[in-house]
Amino acid sequence: MYIGIDVGGTNLAAGLVDQEGRLLASSKRKVNPSLGPEAIVSDILAVALEVLEAGGASREQVEWVGMGIPGTVDRASGVIIYTCNLPFLNTPVRKLFQSGWNIPVLLDNDANCALLGEVFCGAARGRESALVLTIGTGIGAGVLIDGRIFTGFNGAGTEVGHMVIETGGRLCTCGRRGCWETYASATGLKALTREEMERSPESLMWRLSGGTLEGAGGRTAFLAAREGDEAARRVTEEYIRFLGAGVVNLVNIFQPEILCLGGGVSNEADESFLFPIRRIVERERYSKEVPQTEIVRAELGDKAGMIGAAFLGRVAYRGSGAFPGRNGNKFGV
Amino acid sequence: MYIGIDVGGTNLAAGLVDQEGRLLASSKRKVNPSLGPEAIVSDILAVALEVLEAGGASREQVEWVGMGIPGTVDRASGVIIYTCNLPFLNTPVRKLFQSGWNIPVLLDNDANCALLGEVFCGAARGRESALVLTIGTGIGAGVLIDGRIFTGFNGAGTEVGHMVIETGGRLCTCGRRGCWETYASATGLKALTREEMERSPESLMWRLSGGTLEGAGGRTAFLAAREGDEAARRVTEEYIRFLGAGVVNLVNIFQPEILCLGGGVSNEADESFLFPIRRIVERERYSKEVPQTEIVRAELGDKAGMIGAAFLGRVAYRGSGAFPGRNGNKFGV
Repeated sequence: MYIGIDVGGTNLAAGLVDQEGRLLASSKRKVNPSLGPEAIVSDILAVALEVLEAGGASREQVEWVGMGIPGTVDRASGVIIYTCNLPFLNTPVRKLFQSGWNIPVLLDNDANCALLGEVFCGAARGRESALVLTIGTGIGAGVLIDGRIFTGFNGAGTEVGHMVIETGGRLCTCGRRGCWETYASATGLKALTREEMERSPESLMWRLSGGTLEGAGGRTAFLAAREGDEAARRVTEEYIRFLGAGVVNLVNIFQPEILCLGGGVSNEADESFLFPIRRIVERERYSKEVPQTEIVRAELGDKAGMIGAAFLGRVAYRGSGAFPGRNGNKFGV
Repeated sequence: MYIGIDVGGTNLAAGLVDQEGRLLASSKRKVNPSLGPEAIVSDILAVALEVLEAGGASREQVEWVGMGIPGTVDRASGVIIYTCNLPFLNTPVRKLFQSGWNIPVLLDNDANCALLGEVFCGAARGRESALVLTIGTGIGAGVLIDGRIFTGFNGAGTEVGHMVIETGGRLCTCGRRGCWETYASATGLKALTREEMERSPESLMWRLSGGTLEGAGGRTAFLAAREGDEAARRVTEEYIRFLGAGVVNLVNIFQPEILCLGGGVSNEADESFLFPIRRIVERERYSKEVPQTEIVRAELGDKAGMIGAAFLGRVAYRGSGAFPGRNGNKFGV
């Protein structure tokens, strides 16, 4: 069996997973970003041992520990190069973890872990060509090509959230203007919602938000639109239009066999989320005379990162010339 | 040796190429799109035999004939599925050609041929990770991943010209609005030039265009800007901004080791073309703490398609699940 750990800015979530992707046990603990990197790795080790105990398993039964990181990792050396929300900077996480438990440790970013979760036991099960989008604070993507994770030559590819879809548009945290994720992430949806609320003082969205702009969240517009609120409908339509624009771009660029939409927003009803996106893709995709990409919802929800991390030992990489993944990693198939 | 044929909407250009990519002879003839597909394939056969004679070679010395097509091809069956500018529609080009000369015939789109040209004997020589852009009537891209051409599962991927960079923007020939190529192709440049000329009756661009809007071409704004014309400078700056926006998107998505800019526009002086694009990429790319993509000019000019087509027998494909290329084509390495 394997242990997968989703290392988030708020929580550490560990799962004990068997070869078939069944989640045998899970464990969670808060992470305190104000602690130093060594203390956080100690917490990662602690949550790994917790889930082992919760599953009634011994250290010897575990083949490896995989970790999904919200940032840039060096897969070969097991170092976290950089993360936004945690104080890791060129931190040798593998080495630190192994000083407490000497077991193979594999790292990748959270978007690739979500991809692996869906490929090994979710909506993209058994596919060799897949793209999984995680729509959250930003937009992450994992891309599978011929059964391997595509990384770019330097390991930093598939940053699709930072594809400009509106030249000179909204300022993004990355410094560019008009990046897809400034419109189509949950953060972007909240911004569109609040802007429309300011224009529409009579909108139901105010009541659902407790009368304050700050109270508006990623679900507010979808909930109000379902009640027939016109201002909310404008928000959801605009949001879907932005999200769809980027999805069509990715279909035209990658032509994956299947594209899975994940993250909190993807839990909205099919009528207001999945179906309109499918209609946009059908209408706007470039190559119409060839087999088409299936557009589906991701299946594993917030467990995708944890389960996918557990499968990091069963995948190899594609395109990462600068990293050993080029010829498959140590545990690669 | 090999024969490579660039099948364009106006010309057929054939080259006799040796193993090292040296162009031993070339031949060209006009194509008449009003003739039926069979007649055009006869012309393709004729130009192939012409270049053979021009090079003083015999049929037996040629290992295969490669063709670059401005459209969608089925590589496995040697059928042109569709082209914009020629009357091919599910045309069995390989079969038709072989009825006159029974030799292996390989087909791919022109953007992938330009990629191969640069990879085998141009700016991306010897690279395993590369992206070659051809900026012409539209924008084509070929992407090399681990030494193979990336195609998407259905063979129709890397249509980067149809990545929206301006949601709801200019109408594209594909039916979407705001596609990159409506701004950043040579056609887009001409449109920007003519719009600015209408706003600026005093601009030097009018004189360079013989006093008519129709006289303005892809070079007009660059030429006038070099003479200090302010209106022309606005055009070239806007054009470079649009071109750069898409280039940064592609760097963030593919992180190729090298990105080559080809097509007519790329012949402008480095100061007004290559250097400003490099500055935009350096400023706007997402992942700054990893090795960076080199941004260079393509080297083979209008011979890239012909030379690249000649090398179609020496490459295999990546990601094309629906086509035999998945495991390398018959002549693949």
